[in-house]
Order: sequence, then C-alpha cells, then structure tokens
Amino acid sequence: MRDFSRDHSALALNTATLGHNLEGHGAGWSPERVIDACAARGYGGIVFWRREIGARAVDIGNRVRAAGMQVSGLCRTPFIVGRDAGGGDAVRASIDMAAALGAPMLTVVTGGTEPGTRGVLETRKILADRLSRIAPYAADRGVGLALEPLNPMFGGNRTCLFTTAEAFDLCDQIGAPNLGVAVDVYHVWWDTRLAQTLQRTTGRIFGYHLCDWLENTTDMLLDRGMMGDGVADLRALRGAVEGAGYVGPCEVEIFSARDWWQRDPADVLDIIVDRFRAHC
Amino acid sequence: MRDFSRDHSALALNTATLGHNLEGHGAGWSPERVIDACAARGYGGIVFWRREIGARAVDIGNRVRAAGMQVSGLCRTPFIVGRDAGGGDAVRASIDMAAALGAPMLTVVTGGTEPGTRGVLETRKILADRLSRIAPYAADRGVGLALEPLNPMFGGNRTCLFTTAEAFDLCDQIGAPNLGVAVDVYHVWWDTRLAQTLQRTTGRIFGYHLCDWLENTTDMLLDRGMMGDGVADLRALRGAVEGAGYVGPCEVEIFSARDWWQRDPADVLDIIVDRFRAHC
Repeated sequence: MRDFSRDHSALALNTATLGHNLEGHGAGWSPERVIDACAARGYGGIVFWRREIGARAVDIGNRVRAAGMQVSGLCRTPFIVGRDAGGGDAVRASIDMAAALGAPMLTVVTGGTEPGTRGVLETRKILADRLSRIAPYAADRGVGLALEPLNPMFGGNRTCLFTTAEAFDLCDQIGAPNLGVAVDVYHVWWDTRLAQTLQRTTGRIFGYHLCDWLENTTDMLLDRGMMGDGVADLRALRGAVEGAGYVGPCEVEIFSARDWWQRDPADVLDIIVDRFRAHC
Repeated sequence: MRDFSRDHSALALNTATLGHNLEGHGAGWSPERVIDACAARGYGGIVFWRREIGARAVDIGNRVRAAGMQVSGLCRTPFIVGRDAGGGDAVRASIDMAAALGAPMLTVVTGGTEPGTRGVLETRKILADRLSRIAPYAADRGVGLALEPLNPMFGGNRTCLFTTAEAFDLCDQIGAPNLGVAVDVYHVWWDTRLAQTLQRTTGRIFGYHLCDWLENTTDMLLDRGMMGDGVADLRALRGAVEGAGYVGPCEVEIFSARDWWQRDPADVLDIIVDRFRAHC
C-alpha cells in the first residue's frame, strides 16, 4: 500500500465536500477559489460537479493544471435509466463537458427502477443496452465512464447497481475498454466480499472515493462522516483497492449538510489533509 | 407457490404496522383489540413487540389462540453486539417472554459495530460467540432464533449482517438447530443473489416479512411502503423463499410514521388483506 502519512499528492477534493453539488448549500466558493485553496495545500486533484462548470469547462480545466493539479474527474452523467433518466443528448453533453475539462473520468450513477417494472433485473438490461451505445462516444473523446454502485439504501430512484460485483459484471458484459467502476467507501464499507471481488478487476477500478460511515447515520444522503469519525475500516478498504492494482487519486466526497457544509471551507480543506494522512 | 388470491390464512400482522413498536406512534390499540380485529378479518397470526406484552405474556398468547390464530413470533431480542447491546440477562428475558407467549420464533437484530473496532468482521466473531451461548437457552424453551439481516443502510448502530448469505453463513458456523434466518422484503429486495442463496438453506428460513420498497424512500427507518405501492418484485421474492421450502406465515411489517401510522388501524388491516391477496 502507498504510504500517505507524509505524502498527500494522491489526495483529490470532490467539491461536494464543500456543499457544491446542491443548490442552497455550502459557502459558494467559485471554482477559481477552490482551485487556489487546494493548490496551496498540496492537493493532487479536484473533481467538480457539472453545475459548477457551465460553459467554462476549458478555462477551468486549464486553470487546475496551471495550478499544478489534475482534474481527476467530473460528477456526473444524468441518470441513464429510471423515471428521472436524462436522455441521450444530456448524457452526451456531460461527456463533452468532461472532455473539455480534461477530466479522464466521468462518474455514472445509473438511476433507479424503470417505470412499469419491479425489482432491478429488467432495468439492468436497459442500462446495459444504453451504456453500450454511450461508451464508444465517450471513448472517442478520451473519457472513461466510472460506474458507481450505491449502498442498497439508494435503490428505487437512484441506482440499480448495489455492489461492486454487480458493477463489474456489467462491465464484463459490455466489454468496453473505457468502462470501469468507482469504489466509494460510503457505498461499499459493509461489503465483506469486496477484496475478493476486486481481485478479478485489474485496471477496471476507475476511482476510489473517501469518507467515513458514521455509527449513527441519521440521513440517507447528507450525513456522511469525515475520515476517522466513523466505523468504516478505511485501511482495509484501500488495501483491497490497491491490492487490485489501483494507484490513482483518492477522492474525498463528503455530503454533510449539518456538519461539514456549515464550516469554513478553508478549515475543511486543512482537516481533510490531516485526516487523509492519519486515517486513510 | 401457494395461491393467496383467495386464501389469506398465511397472513400475519406484525404490530409495528400499527405503530406499536415506537412510543408516541400509532393509535394505541390494546393487544386484545388487535387480536379481535385480526381474528375478525381472518388473519392467521400476530407478531407482537416486547413493549406491548409486559407481564401478560401467557394471557395474551392464550387470547390469540382462543381467537383461532397463532402467535407467529415476537420482536425482538435486545441487540447482541455493538454499543447498545443488551446483555445476557435482558436477552434471556426476551426468550422467556417468547416462550410464555407460545411464540415459536424470536427475531434477532444483531446490533452494530463493537466500540473500539472498525468494519464488521471483529463484531461478527463476538456475535457468533454470544449466539452460540444464547441458542441452547432458547432451544430448552422451544424458541427459535430468527437472525434478520438488515439493509446495509443500517450498518454502524443496528446490524453487522447485511445479506441473507451472511446470516446463513453464521448459522452454518454456529450449527444450532434452533437458529435460522428471517427474510424481510425491506432488507433483501435489492439482492439479486437471493434465490441462489436460499437454495442451500432448507428448513433454515424462520420467517418471511412483507412490505414494499417505495421508489422514493425518504426516511431510513420509518418510510416503508404497503405491498403494491413500491418497486420490490414481491412475487419473485416469495418465489425464492418458497422455492427453498418455506411454507410459514407471511408477516406484514410496515414502519410508516407519515402514512400508515396516521390511518385508522381498522382500515389498515382491511387494506393489508386486499393487498396480500392481490400483490404478494
């Protein structure tokens, strides 16, 4: 495993950690201010959300690189399936934005159960069909698609993939070289089969997302914990990911409406560095 | 599969469906009133919570049977592990209560991660040790222990078992004849490996709990749906359970603070019968 205790160059900020993924939350820092603050603290990369980028993708991407960092990824495509699916034009526009940013990865949260169906099996067939048509468009633009399985609490309206095993099965089925999986602590910490699952996936882990699972999680979506404050076995999880060959960025993504989004972003960014070195 | 369209004798009420598991919720019907209302509608059984029983276990059990029904089970032991674990005396008292009621099954929700540990593996070892000492005490009193794996959203403070596969693994490890697994739609609906898992479990399914998973679930604990209102594939789930030989009661357990607990219990009980015949 990599030693992060004195080197946090693998650390990336997902701007959701500052509340930037939801209207009405966070301190409202501009992308430029976030870039400067991360660069000043030695972060290696940033992952933005589409709503922050607008028509400025090229400029923001260049600004990140000029500051000595990488745009590690972009969140995310519209849902691919389910009642709130975004449609092909919107999905392609998100891929175009990732390409303009110079982001190597675009996260995919699948969306939930298709209207008129039950369970998830029929929905997964539709998902596979749509992803197999989207993947070449992304490949032509140099963008990897990182399928993110979600904690089963998010079935119904947000996902039809609940474990990394299911996500890798789908990758195997589609067989597109630019299709992989994002492993997020919040979604997988409970899965004691994770290390075994990841052993078969060399090169297919497209991202590793950090937070902690609070012992008394009170809200499904917006109560994630800072690394070290919860019960996830962060070292074991990273061991499983790196054991499968992953050496990419470790992206801190903490949705926390009542705690971390209430704090000064400068303090949050400092604490992340400390916790990353001490706990991850 | 059994045909429930004209026969709901397998239907059991878990009184949590009337809000009886939480202080300050529900219409406050007495056990006697619940018994009479269920008997009048042809329910086959009732599952109570400890807080309703107090010192009247023998009387309430006899009253259920005199009304032509069974006490299908009792909810539940105190947590066995985790910060809020109940301790041996409290666990044995819950077993004694089940025996006095004449309940063949006592549900076990394990409790969460042990203080001072991370993840769930160490906690599961402690759980196995404690269950192996509890099981003979229950066996001597004719009580089966139904381990209930919970949706992974309940990791941290409520469970260290997230799938039926994990629960059956633990049963295999302990090897007590009165230790089995409760399969609850709310917790397992997303698990597409369920049917495969259950095939190895003949005789070890100790309960089947019904509700529905609402497409837009808004609360982790108290927003379960009535059968037919959600996206769970209820027929496929019962097919998996009955395919493994289960022919016991189907227990409706709907925690619903903002919907079903606000309604007249008499109406709720009527609607359950209709939905059970039409959707389950």
